[in-house]
This record gives sequence, structure tokens and C-alpha cells, in this order.
Amino acid sequence: MRILYHLPLSPFCRKVRLALQEKRIPFELRAERIWERREEFMAMNPAGTVPVLQEENGLVLADSYAICEYLEEAYPDAPLLGRTHAERAEVRRLVAWFDGKFSKEVTQNLLYEKQLKRMMGRGNPDAGALRAGYANLKPHLEYLGWLHETRAWLAGAQFSLADLAAAAHLSVLDYIGDVDWTLNEAAKDWYARVKSRPSFRPILADRVSGLLPPEHYDNLDF
Amino acid sequence: MRILYHLPLSPFCRKVRLALQEKRIPFELRAERIWERREEFMAMNPAGTVPVLQEENGLVLADSYAICEYLEEAYPDAPLLGRTHAERAEVRRLVAWFDGKFSKEVTQNLLYEKQLKRMMGRGNPDAGALRAGYANLKPHLEYLGWLHETRAWLAGAQFSLADLAAAAHLSVLDYIGDVDWTLNEAAKDWYARVKSRPSFRPILADRVSGLLPPEHYDNLDF
Repeated sequence: MRILYHLPLSPFCRKVRLALQEKRIPFELRAERIWERREEFMAMNPAGTVPVLQEENGLVLADSYAICEYLEEAYPDAPLLGRTHAERAEVRRLVAWFDGKFSKEVTQNLLYEKQLKRMMGRGNPDAGALRAGYANLKPHLEYLGWLHETRAWLAGAQFSLADLAAAAHLSVLDYIGDVDWTLNEAAKDWYARVKSRPSFRPILADRVSGLLPPEHYDNLDF
Repeated sequence: MRILYHLPLSPFCRKVRLALQEKRIPFELRAERIWERREEFMAMNPAGTVPVLQEENGLVLADSYAICEYLEEAYPDAPLLGRTHAERAEVRRLVAWFDGKFSKEVTQNLLYEKQLKRMMGRGNPDAGALRAGYANLKPHLEYLGWLHETRAWLAGAQFSLADLAAAAHLSVLDYIGDVDWTLNEAAKDWYARVKSRPSFRPILADRVSGLLPPEHYDNLDF
């Protein structure tokens, strides 16, 4: 069976899980405690990060960028990157936006400080980082809302990996109760649409021990 | 004419310049002072970052990941991503390694603190960041050296975007005098090979006003 090594609250793992679901590629999830630096895992990915995908033929893929590009090449059904050069450029620009800019300005400030630090026993959250994370979330939700008001999906007419990347980050922040959806109505509408896709169900069913999500987390009509 | 908006000491811009040169695609360079947030530039790339590539047909591509994947799709001659799924996965894993892990652990600590902060008038370098950057460079050079000892090029038998990504970061650090090449002989050998490729010449000829590189910077036999 195909195996995805992951962590439930990693946005990069969630993006890959969503892509696999959208393409209806069956896989088994294995939680990898990356901070233990397990020898067999480090041999698969010397960077020591998740996600790592192990195919049934033995091929090992590390890093969510490499995995998603591979999935599109190996399983072209239910395309997630668009067709024309212009469409693909826009999808990838937005994937880079959320996995790079949004991740650095928002996700790392909130998720790392509030959850990962605690889990790895690295002390209390830094108040300055939390403040920066909350402050940065607002303009990002506005940009997302603006994209949704001007296009059917974030990158254009078609649902794409850009929607998955954005939803992966926001779903993690929503799990730890950090998204104030009243900040932007259009962003909330977009998230409600993504959330109601069948590919999202396993993500909404995830529970991390010792940390319950807010009540609206798995509510499709939040 | 095709235009690449760039900054001379951005490793992401250098990676794209090298890819364009390797594929013999002509282009014109335009330095973009991104901190001025020029209106026309922000319209091309709301993230406000370089590189941005403007094609002759008007197509605008933002982000080095989107640009490099596009170049491979639109100009398949002189392929830089490999042929098989396994080759492409390895190239992309290593591109993510250098543009993600190496960038965060080394480049940002050294280049941002020593050069960009000064240029943007944001004060003096942080000594802790510099220490971390130098300390992190060593294991990265060892990994690079190990890859070169076991393979013809970093990702395998073929020269690839992985070599360009790694060389882009190291060339920038070398310009600011921060690479101690005596740390790893195999890494130095690899860099000497990349440096002597014709695609590297414009990079070695670059000069930033007010900052001269060390003497060995453009010496092929350093």
C-alpha cells in the first residue's frame, strides 16, 4: 500500500492529503514523530521533515513541492495545476504565496509558537510572534477574499492546488482556534466551499490528542 | 524582449538566471528595488518579491518555483529536471532543500543580516544570527560534498536545477566572503565545476555598488 508519512497539523502534509483525495489515489497515513529522527525515516528524507510519500513500487518522494508536482505528472486525472502556461503560472504563484509568504508571516508565528513548541517541549509561546501572526492574518484573509470575489476559485476558473495549499494552512489555524472568520466574509465563503468537498472530510475528522478544535471546526455551515 | 526583474544578490534570481542561460533563452535584466514597492511592479507580483519574468507575449511569472517549472515546460531543450519520476523527485527534493532548508538555516542568517539589512537601513547585523549561519554552513557543505562524492552531479548522473539552486545560494554567500571552502574539499570541487560553466559567467561578472567580492570570487581556479 502507498504510505504517506505525515503529522496531522502540518499544512504541507494536509495539502498532499487533499491532493491525493482529489485525485482518488488510495493511501495509508502514518504519523511520523519527526523530532525523534528515526533512522529509517532519516534515510528516506535526510531533511527529517514530513510529508514523505512512499509509492507501492518503492519510489520515495520527500517535500510537498516534489510530491505535488509528481502526483500531477504520474496521475494526470483530476488535474490540479491547470492546463495553459498562464494557468499553471498562477496556480504555482499562489501555492508559493501560501507555502512561503503566508506560512512565514502567519502559520509559523501561530502554529509553531502555540502548538509545536509545546509538543516538542521547547517552552512557552513568544507573545511578539503571536501578535505578528494575528496581525498578518488579516491582510492575507483580505487578499484571499479579493481573489474569491474576482474568480470562481483562487487561481481562476478551475479548482486547483492553490485552493488546497490555502485551505491546508487555514484548516490548521482553524483547528487551533486562530482564525476569526468575521474578518472577511468572502474568505469565509471560499473556505466553506472548500470545506464541503469530499476530499476535506478526513481532515475535518482529525483529532490531535490533548488538543480539541473549536466547535465550528468540522461544521460545514460555520 | 523578455525581461527578468531581479536583485543581483538574490539566490532565487540567480537560480532563474542560470536556468535561462543553460537553456540559451535570451533575456534582459532589470534590477528592481523591491523595498520601494513600485506600483507597476506590485501589480505584476503582489508579493513584491523578485524574480519576476515577463515574457515577450506579455505572460508574467512570479516566484522562482513557478518560473523554473514553466521554463522546463515551455523550453524543454537542455532539460533541468530529469526524465523519470525518480530523477525528477530527486531534483525537486534538492531544490527544496537549498531554497528551503539551506536558505533558512544559512543564507537568511548571513545575507539578510550582513547585506540586506544595511541596504534597507534596518540596523546592524545580529551576532547570534551570524553565528548560527556560519555554524549551519558546515554540515550543509558536508552534505553537498557527500552528494558530489557519490554522484556525478548533486541529483544524479545529469546536471540539473538542483546544482543551479545550490550554486545560486553559495555564489551569493561567496560574494559576501562567507564561504570557507577549506571546510570541505568535495564541495569545493563541485562548485569549481559549476562555476566554470558558461552559464555562470554573467553571475561572476556581477558587482554590487559599495561591496566588492573577495579576490577568489570570479577565479575559476580558487
